[in-house]
Amino acid sequence: MPEHLPQPAIVLVRPQMGENIGAAARAMLNFGLERMRLVAPRDGWPNPAATAMASGAGRVLDRAGLYPDLGGAISDCTYVLATTARMRGLTKPVLSPERAMQITREKMQAGEKVAILFGPERAGLENEDVARANAIVSVPVNPDFPSLNLAQCVLLLGYEWRRQNAQVIAEQTDLGKTIWATAGEIDHLAQNYETTLDQAGFFFPPEKAANMQTNLRNLWSRMPLTRVDVQMLHGILRQMVRWKHRDD
Amino acid sequence: MPEHLPQPAIVLVRPQMGENIGAAARAMLNFGLERMRLVAPRDGWPNPAATAMASGAGRVLDRAGLYPDLGGAISDCTYVLATTARMRGLTKPVLSPERAMQITREKMQAGEKVAILFGPERAGLENEDVARANAIVSVPVNPDFPSLNLAQCVLLLGYEWRRQNAQVIAEQTDLGKTIWATAGEIDHLAQNYETTLDQAGFFFPPEKAANMQTNLRNLWSRMPLTRVDVQMLHGILRQMVRWKHRDD
Repeated sequence: MPEHLPQPAIVLVRPQMGENIGAAARAMLNFGLERMRLVAPRDGWPNPAATAMASGAGRVLDRAGLYPDLGGAISDCTYVLATTARMRGLTKPVLSPERAMQITREKMQAGEKVAILFGPERAGLENEDVARANAIVSVPVNPDFPSLNLAQCVLLLGYEWRRQNAQVIAEQTDLGKTIWATAGEIDHLAQNYETTLDQAGFFFPPEKAANMQTNLRNLWSRMPLTRVDVQMLHGILRQMVRWKHRDD
Repeated sequence: MPEHLPQPAIVLVRPQMGENIGAAARAMLNFGLERMRLVAPRDGWPNPAATAMASGAGRVLDRAGLYPDLGGAISDCTYVLATTARMRGLTKPVLSPERAMQITREKMQAGEKVAILFGPERAGLENEDVARANAIVSVPVNPDFPSLNLAQCVLLLGYEWRRQNAQVIAEQTDLGKTIWATAGEIDHLAQNYETTLDQAGFFFPPEKAANMQTNLRNLWSRMPLTRVDVQMLHGILRQMVRWKHRDD
């Protein structure tokens, strides 16, 4: 996700503790978001406590826009999302974070500017703030314990933003310097074990031998073996044969 | 998501700060996870700093299992996930949080027991720990700023767990005590405005009147209006008419 791509603005409305502003900056940068806007931070701006907490994410704070009121902070935006923990009785679409970031991606791809509003730590956004938004985003927390803090809420939206925008690979295996074994290599391994184990008297009693061989073949083919794994399994067998023939 | 449903065990391996154990308990409970297992916490157990931080999530700590080593903590589990920030050169599937929680849901529905491992704050899991896992989970963070803390990592996995398990509604609108206006009500509103605005001389010049009426009709039908909205719009017009005919 190249950083020059359009991003939604993360708007912290009347944030209180500088530490929380710094933690929000870190949460943003964790998922590649760098556009912060601050509306009337309680303790003024800049705020040394925010800078100390932001640590490696200080550049997000350095570039943050400062606004006296919410209207000014979102005046250039065509789509505004308000994050809230609870329903407000306001007639407005309530979106899951996933759906909200899908819509955000689509709107930004069409050239729109999007803002996501986060309220003050204690009380959250006022209804007057929410009334300026096109839709509400609500994180589906446990209703018996819905206590997300500001930076956690930013983190979850950032995660969904990145999930919708970066090409997240669902599943891959790091093979290091090896590659998956071919069916031919697996077959060769199976034959080697069968021959040697037969000599060692493993397939006993005779009436069960065929079934035991099938089970062993099945074991090899069920495993996701790499070429290195196959070489190690050959090596184990070779060493057992050497040991058998050694004089000690 | 009823609490008696099976849940994965959240295994904190050699956690250091009690505060982080408490914050992890809160993050778990935010998304309905209550099964914590602790492997050799550095400062012993119970830990007052953990209890103080957990606050409303204290019951997660009260019920946490304590184990001297990782082997004991996962001995009853058939599928083990290891969360890591970086690739390890271990030949093992690496899953996105979404894919990992899909697999977890499927396995638990089939009666399996699943554990998710989180490493110590500074260094994360050792390769020896990761070697005990069936797969790795890696959060797709910004590679230039991948600094998730323990509780944030637990929070994101908990969020994905709940997203896969709770019936999260993507989009809904809270209508409060009202309902959406019908097409008939919208049509009646449009006619009322047309008639009154025509009397007021709004549709001028005459050659543009038809087009202006169409645009106004289009405005009403494009809006997602509720019955309460329609009543308010009628009220606005009625009051403007009264004002016109008042003597002041």
